[in-house]
Amino acid sequence: MFSDRVLMGPGPSNPYPEVVSAFTRPLLGHLDPEFLEVLDETCDRLRAVYRTSNSLTLPVSGTGSAGMEAAFVNLVGPGDVAVVGVNGLFGERMCEVAARLGAEVVRVDAPWGEPLDPVALVEAHPSPAVIALVHAETSTGVRNDVEDVARGKGDALLLVDAVTSLGGIPFDADLWGVDLAYSGTQKCLGVPPGLSPLTVGPQARARLKQRPSSWYLDLGLIAHYVEGAGGRTYHHTAPVSMIFALHAGLGVLLQEGLEGSWARHEACGRALQAGLEKLGFELVAPAAHRLPQLTTVWVPDDLGGLSEADVRATLLQRYGIEIGAGVGVMAGRAWRIGCMGHTARPRNVELLLGALEEVLGR
Amino acid sequence: MFSDRVLMGPGPSNPYPEVVSAFTRPLLGHLDPEFLEVLDETCDRLRAVYRTSNSLTLPVSGTGSAGMEAAFVNLVGPGDVAVVGVNGLFGERMCEVAARLGAEVVRVDAPWGEPLDPVALVEAHPSPAVIALVHAETSTGVRNDVEDVARGKGDALLLVDAVTSLGGIPFDADLWGVDLAYSGTQKCLGVPPGLSPLTVGPQARARLKQRPSSWYLDLGLIAHYVEGAGGRTYHHTAPVSMIFALHAGLGVLLQEGLEGSWARHEACGRALQAGLEKLGFELVAPAAHRLPQLTTVWVPDDLGGLSEADVRATLLQRYGIEIGAGVGVMAGRAWRIGCMGHTARPRNVELLLGALEEVLGR
Repeated sequence: MFSDRVLMGPGPSNPYPEVVSAFTRPLLGHLDPEFLEVLDETCDRLRAVYRTSNSLTLPVSGTGSAGMEAAFVNLVGPGDVAVVGVNGLFGERMCEVAARLGAEVVRVDAPWGEPLDPVALVEAHPSPAVIALVHAETSTGVRNDVEDVARGKGDALLLVDAVTSLGGIPFDADLWGVDLAYSGTQKCLGVPPGLSPLTVGPQARARLKQRPSSWYLDLGLIAHYVEGAGGRTYHHTAPVSMIFALHAGLGVLLQEGLEGSWARHEACGRALQAGLEKLGFELVAPAAHRLPQLTTVWVPDDLGGLSEADVRATLLQRYGIEIGAGVGVMAGRAWRIGCMGHTARPRNVELLLGALEEVLGR
Repeated sequence: MFSDRVLMGPGPSNPYPEVVSAFTRPLLGHLDPEFLEVLDETCDRLRAVYRTSNSLTLPVSGTGSAGMEAAFVNLVGPGDVAVVGVNGLFGERMCEVAARLGAEVVRVDAPWGEPLDPVALVEAHPSPAVIALVHAETSTGVRNDVEDVARGKGDALLLVDAVTSLGGIPFDADLWGVDLAYSGTQKCLGVPPGLSPLTVGPQARARLKQRPSSWYLDLGLIAHYVEGAGGRTYHHTAPVSMIFALHAGLGVLLQEGLEGSWARHEACGRALQAGLEKLGFELVAPAAHRLPQLTTVWVPDDLGGLSEADVRATLLQRYGIEIGAGVGVMAGRAWRIGCMGHTARPRNVELLLGALEEVLGR
């Protein structure tokens, strides 16, 4: 018997019903005209969700971390300076990815659970190739101020991790002046993990590395297939079923409207956070930079004799609810509760609050 | 209205019905105990299909080309000698992938449509780090003799592209002594594209690069999640739905039995090839190295006034049959006809032969 989870961890979230149906669409070849229409429409929908007119907007054939790697491998090489904001696991990961490519990494740290200082980021180096930061830190539940960094970035390219933000909170690539952003399907887009929606602005495009160390993630080559100007050139076989799923998920999102999706994530997240505080939990992220879609709470000292892992296991076994453990400096000390995509519904908020109350005997 | 194709190109093939059902299984988190069971079972099934006891056997989170990149990035770095057999597009791609990583590439060419010379490969360099070749060249329909190269490889690591071979013709990783092999899901495994099953033998494992230039494809890190000895360490979010699909496809394959699957691919491929010759087509690959699962034929001079693209378009529009165009030196001159996975059924062979006869007026 298959378990039917309420996915309230840091991702994946529950997919929209339309997404599940899309997986059963008869398979098409990656050069079939009918598939190319779906691909084109998927890229159009991604442009709408990113609020961009960037031609090079596409689903990278890997998970969100593949998007991160695609971003760096196409923009930085040996000796290039990459300023990276670090206030959580995914900022750390950016440093590691960039360092492996030979970049000179200039870290700008903030404590986990606090937002980055935009001024520190733009002043960290006189002429960086890129300034990179995570918009919504999945490890801490903190929102970083991308707009403020964009305003002060100068000639540097601004590279943004929008994995947990896209579709859940406002993101405006063109208005803000984001040069490259990548996301993941399994958070606020309500699609299973497997693709990384990515967009490249004109300045980043002009500076794409020629023949980067990764052939698989070479955006210059992939563009010949995805954009299709003057015919499609095969690069690698597109993950057709996952693209059907993303196409459907973006359709649901855009039918609701971006503002509608943001408002729903906001309403559910704030209701969850208010409910948690009412139960006596202390929230990790400061109110002004607290994400609605991903809530971090400190694990209370008194769990009625249970360990924090026991509580998560009980939620899973008794209610089929998944919540996330803390990671990094918060391992064992915090929980991460997602309310993203199709999971972001009042009924799931109420369910989790009721279940926590029961399990913890509050 | 969705078109329902008979996928007889070079991949994807039609997925098994059980695979389509698996996509609709309720989504699980990538650390859910129930998902980890599915993942473990998937890796066990991959071991059975590769005929290996290699612990590090897993689905890489990208398409077959990601598997190729994972293979090289974990085994070769700047200055390492990579001997690469080239008799088609995918051998060429191996050279490009290895060169981007700074390897010294020693090419051993054979004409497109002919097999590689195993002796030339093992004698190409006195002490290569790796010898790499494609088992089943998807661009030409030719089988290369992996066993003969394995016997003579000496201290070099043998790296094999099994994208189009795995599940379709005999492959015996441990018996042959293959050090690393990767495949794709969308060929003879009967699963849509999106994952690359990969296996790493003990000698290759001992020589895995520490901190390779790719973080996403770092097999040393991924092992901590996939093998799970001493607990699972999160690396990247696993593409859960695609793994459900692969798990189901491998289940179908192993229920039929590996030998059964090989025999079915053999029978369908040979019937197709005999039928094509009866219709007057000339096959590209020489009989002794002709793949059953992927047939290349020269485009006849007389197509009754149609272009070769017209013929493919007519097959697609009138019969819903996809066949593949030629690539590289065979672009416009050959067709590639796949009979793989669930497509490898006598009914599809008969259908295609009948349709070709009708379209070409033979």
